[in-house]
Amino acid sequence: MNAEDLFDQIRKKQSFLCVGLDADEDKIPSHLFKYDDPVFEFNKAIIDATHDLVVAYKPNLAFYEAMGTKGIISLEKTNAYIQENFPEIIMIADAKRGDIGNTARMYARSVFEQFGFDAVTLSPYMGKDSIDPFFEYKDKWVVLLGVTSNSGAEDFQLANTDTGRPFFMEVIDKGSKWADENQLMFVAGATRPEMLKEIRQVIPNHFLLVPGVGAQGGNLEDVAANGINSQCGLLVNSSRAIIYAGNNEHFAQEARISAHDLQDKMKAILLEHNLLD
Amino acid sequence: MNAEDLFDQIRKKQSFLCVGLDADEDKIPSHLFKYDDPVFEFNKAIIDATHDLVVAYKPNLAFYEAMGTKGIISLEKTNAYIQENFPEIIMIADAKRGDIGNTARMYARSVFEQFGFDAVTLSPYMGKDSIDPFFEYKDKWVVLLGVTSNSGAEDFQLANTDTGRPFFMEVIDKGSKWADENQLMFVAGATRPEMLKEIRQVIPNHFLLVPGVGAQGGNLEDVAANGINSQCGLLVNSSRAIIYAGNNEHFAQEARISAHDLQDKMKAILLEHNLLD
Repeated sequence: MNAEDLFDQIRKKQSFLCVGLDADEDKIPSHLFKYDDPVFEFNKAIIDATHDLVVAYKPNLAFYEAMGTKGIISLEKTNAYIQENFPEIIMIADAKRGDIGNTARMYARSVFEQFGFDAVTLSPYMGKDSIDPFFEYKDKWVVLLGVTSNSGAEDFQLANTDTGRPFFMEVIDKGSKWADENQLMFVAGATRPEMLKEIRQVIPNHFLLVPGVGAQGGNLEDVAANGINSQCGLLVNSSRAIIYAGNNEHFAQEARISAHDLQDKMKAILLEHNLLD
Repeated sequence: MNAEDLFDQIRKKQSFLCVGLDADEDKIPSHLFKYDDPVFEFNKAIIDATHDLVVAYKPNLAFYEAMGTKGIISLEKTNAYIQENFPEIIMIADAKRGDIGNTARMYARSVFEQFGFDAVTLSPYMGKDSIDPFFEYKDKWVVLLGVTSNSGAEDFQLANTDTGRPFFMEVIDKGSKWADENQLMFVAGATRPEMLKEIRQVIPNHFLLVPGVGAQGGNLEDVAANGINSQCGLLVNSSRAIIYAGNNEHFAQEARISAHDLQDKMKAILLEHNLLD
């Protein structure tokens, strides 16, 4: 899937929503524990209730790794379920990996071949040769960390380089030359919408994956006002505010209501920017 | 285990060697495929042949994740084998993780509780709140990326900040205030030994995990000349040059010869610096 295909799906669904499938055994509804694989059943219910409202799902691998082997199996089943039933939806591995070339090749094999993800978040710290092996998969995406939504972003990402720009902007500027918008997106946190405008001056065309709307306090309208482009160019993620909207037997319906609320706002934004037919 | 305990083990074994257990199904000897779990058998043979020469083993998680669930099982068995038979040896998860607080807690649970590692490599890009959850495990170590051994280190780590120092030095300076040398080490690549001397001016006491000796071209004597301190302060890693020293039925003995060669040089270095009794 390239950027044009993604924009087509955004227009068709009138949504640029990504839902973070961060299933946590300590938070999912208790009635699910009657099943053999409560985490998969949780994900499946969330997917069934939201698939027509979203263009991407983003499991964070940490949540599955924390459960050991059974968590990995839950993730494999989740991905297989999405691929089989909703093949148009982009599956993003939120992994934030980054390692030397021969190791990066192994991570690429893991996320793209073993798990069948369409995209993976990567950390830029180790530079180009830690990212290149992922670009060898021509139909897959790299989502490189730019500026993140957490307070710790101030420690290094926002520190100034000797060019006078913050460090994350060097990452975005240099990184954007490694691949075009059909293979590369950047993470830009919703909690710093003013920076989205500056980012758009450097990369007008690349998609941005925007976490931080919802539990982390970011605002959708501010994100759109500063970050939208002529192909939308935004995937806005919400995890906890959607998947934990409810915690009883009606959790999936409550997740749908929460997702629908965001999708309604996204539709209005797309209309406002003349991006729907 | 704190820094003093680690130094005791270094003196006892006359070694500061860490062996990278990066088992790759495409590289391990073919006769191992008669076993149910060739990767575990490979690791077990390497461990049996080298445990008295090393103070740490460092599996890179990418290699296990690339094999899917069976790789995770091979890793769990490898860790259990080391814990049961050689509990004094530090097990380092080479994971290079880094994510927001609630996710970092999941990664910490995965590496420290599910897998039982003693230490984990982390990427600094997302700042202090992405590292803090790991420090809550008081008897475990964080190994923060400083300057890495690959060419891509030049892209961002070696870029200058507005203080005139390279970016990685800001990471080491700021990061070193997050925990003392009993919970925190830094990665500093062997391929840039001149930088070890500068690093030692900022952090005289923290241990450095030094990759890049062997296949990547780093030199042990240069590393020691620039990086050793009064508690040794170095864990020098070699992966491919040891575990793939041979690739027939004698691979474990050849791994031992290669490890022994490095340990002999380490003993000479420790003697030269009056660090052995």
